[in-house]
Amino acid sequence: MSKFKIGILGFGTVGSGVFNVLRENHDEILAKTGIDFEIASILDLDHEKIISVAGDEKLIAKDIDDLINMSDVVLELIGGTRIAFDFAKKALNAKKHLVTANKALIALHGTELFNLAKENNVSILYEASVAGGIPIIKALREGVVSNKVEWVAGILNGTTNYILTEMKNNGLSFQTALSQAQSLGYAEADPTFDIEGIDAAHKITIIASIAFGVSLNFNDVFVEGITNLQLKDVAYAEELGYRIKLIGLAKKVNQDIEVRVHPTLISETQLVANVDGPMNAVLVMGNMLGPTLYYGAGAGSDPTASAVLSDVIDLARSISNGNKVFHIPSFGYEDSNLSSLKFKKINEINSGYYIRANFVDAAGVLAKITSLFADKNISIDEMHQKMLKKNQTENDVIIVVKNAQEKEINSIINDIQKMKSNVGNVVKIRLEELAK
Amino acid sequence: MSKFKIGILGFGTVGSGVFNVLRENHDEILAKTGIDFEIASILDLDHEKIISVAGDEKLIAKDIDDLINMSDVVLELIGGTRIAFDFAKKALNAKKHLVTANKALIALHGTELFNLAKENNVSILYEASVAGGIPIIKALREGVVSNKVEWVAGILNGTTNYILTEMKNNGLSFQTALSQAQSLGYAEADPTFDIEGIDAAHKITIIASIAFGVSLNFNDVFVEGITNLQLKDVAYAEELGYRIKLIGLAKKVNQDIEVRVHPTLISETQLVANVDGPMNAVLVMGNMLGPTLYYGAGAGSDPTASAVLSDVIDLARSISNGNKVFHIPSFGYEDSNLSSLKFKKINEINSGYYIRANFVDAAGVLAKITSLFADKNISIDEMHQKMLKKNQTENDVIIVVKNAQEKEINSIINDIQKMKSNVGNVVKIRLEELAK
Repeated sequence: MSKFKIGILGFGTVGSGVFNVLRENHDEILAKTGIDFEIASILDLDHEKIISVAGDEKLIAKDIDDLINMSDVVLELIGGTRIAFDFAKKALNAKKHLVTANKALIALHGTELFNLAKENNVSILYEASVAGGIPIIKALREGVVSNKVEWVAGILNGTTNYILTEMKNNGLSFQTALSQAQSLGYAEADPTFDIEGIDAAHKITIIASIAFGVSLNFNDVFVEGITNLQLKDVAYAEELGYRIKLIGLAKKVNQDIEVRVHPTLISETQLVANVDGPMNAVLVMGNMLGPTLYYGAGAGSDPTASAVLSDVIDLARSISNGNKVFHIPSFGYEDSNLSSLKFKKINEINSGYYIRANFVDAAGVLAKITSLFADKNISIDEMHQKMLKKNQTENDVIIVVKNAQEKEINSIINDIQKMKSNVGNVVKIRLEELAK
Repeated sequence: MSKFKIGILGFGTVGSGVFNVLRENHDEILAKTGIDFEIASILDLDHEKIISVAGDEKLIAKDIDDLINMSDVVLELIGGTRIAFDFAKKALNAKKHLVTANKALIALHGTELFNLAKENNVSILYEASVAGGIPIIKALREGVVSNKVEWVAGILNGTTNYILTEMKNNGLSFQTALSQAQSLGYAEADPTFDIEGIDAAHKITIIASIAFGVSLNFNDVFVEGITNLQLKDVAYAEELGYRIKLIGLAKKVNQDIEVRVHPTLISETQLVANVDGPMNAVLVMGNMLGPTLYYGAGAGSDPTASAVLSDVIDLARSISNGNKVFHIPSFGYEDSNLSSLKFKKINEINSGYYIRANFVDAAGVLAKITSLFADKNISIDEMHQKMLKKNQTENDVIIVVKNAQEKEINSIINDIQKMKSNVGNVVKIRLEELAK
């Protein structure tokens, strides 16, 4: 029976979860692997937490070097990209394997870290960085390995999915739903990263690299959050048979790829549209396999820790068989075969669209609008006019288009916006058909 | 760049799918793995099909020995348990790795085959044997490895799920839905294995072994198919907020396990209850991770072939790094740690129950029935009385119980059956709450 020593950097939600899961399941894991996994060292400023959770002050590392010395694998569970980045580099330079749950670290500094790992002949695993406890990295890298991935669409952020679920189910405004999420611990005091879509964008950046074998490229990801989403549009979407979800989408279109995060209408007949509350789900379209979907907890102490430990076990199983490094490359592609697909600008994408405009004295409005679409050869899938109760001369006009180029739609919206009887801002929400 | 030679035994739906997927995705797989996978030999009586699909008669093997000689890995895609079993043993004895899509072979003869593989220092992989293209074996063996699995519940048979979906959505009787499934190719001419639940039972047998580290034990699996399911109960279940699915369930209860396949009421709020048509889904409950769900095509040429090839690639990636065998044990547990949990008899299980009885002149019936449950300290969750249109004196009485022991329920049903005003057979369908 071999031993495998784990050093935990950062003893917050996920770090203490790792301790917890390993204490609970140590013997089960030993039965599965024949390897005796042991927490050897913990580094965190909060010594009291270490003592109260781990009950053993001897586990407290003096400093990062002490922790690295004690460990076969270093778990970076600090979060953020400053200290985490420094310590990750230190661990790799000391020729220690690294497991991280840090999406920002991988999305923003992954390329440098993977190169450093390679120089030092060690591995980086990062399952927990995307969709928490769902083994989606493994599914992409190994489960669907025989397929060309056509696209991946995911609900990758539990906070926003909780908010959207509350807006739909209970008619809460965005602000009220956000406050509720905060009081329940689903949203942080500063929720910017979640509600502005940045967290989901970090995750879809990582997914795109594994799905298509491209370099990490967070800067070319289009990001739109849910802060401007109005309850009215959630309700109209529902009436039309759609749910609005914050979707991270990575899609190959000929030799280009699109990677984007934005509120998205999805037909309620799709399984992924029915993923509610703080849960995550990722839908992967393979060219021969068709759609597969992976669902589970996208955050939380024990689920995320479960994913961190599955990486540790995967690594230990691989290297206990004589490998120096984990036997599958970081993105699931041989390094020399990473491709350089071009990222499309948002203006150039094709998508479906939900458009809502608000008019007074709407005589002739529908004819005018339909002609704007006809001029650009864009077919309208549905068009509805809703008289508003408050003011009988005021109407919402809703248009659903299944496929158009973004810049054409923007140009039409610009024209609608200028129409004399238009009042208020025209709303545009993208729509994806996904798997049939 | 290393070469990896594949021998295909059986060139039917799945075998020709493997050829097809590899032709389509060979270069993608090469970019991912750096390994040049090549179909080296095909054995099937239908030479014309080999020539028409593969376009190369040099690939036709003279006999099983010829195929084995040509291959690094042998794919057993014949089906059934006679020739498939013989040929699998021949391949293993010749020290060739084996990949199979054959659930019956693994469920019924897996123990002997895994032992033989071990003696010969080769591996058997079998991802495609459960839930077609969904990487569920990998998810259980590696993805949720850090967890104790509490239970697994799966829609494991596409034929029956298609039939149940048609009954619910379109009000078809079982027989009509079956005929439709046959005409669409979702059901075979002899559908016995599917509709009697045997196919799903083979699959849950395999799942139970990986989930709990127990030996394969098909004979102790309780199996009830969908042939007696009445449209009326599908509709009543729907009214009460449930869907009826053919569920394969493997569950650990203290030191015992329950493994069973039967029609099951599941709340419509559960994602798995919304998996419709011929699709499969498997819900896994981990003790720290909570629920994760895996969804996709459970059958079909290319999806199943995709899973077969993911095994081939997994194997080749593992052994190209110097291992003699695949680096994770067959069931994900070290052989010496396989446990011998006792399989519960169906009478001893606890479950929820939907019970329907049919009465004429129902005065006093509800009081009598409730007292039968009260006598056994079983609480009734819901009770409904439905007057039947045809005959106003005839009533359906529906009782939903959330938790009771099967033998107590059988005893109550026996008493209801004997009640004077009862007409027709009392219907019992199990109900599972699954994940909250």
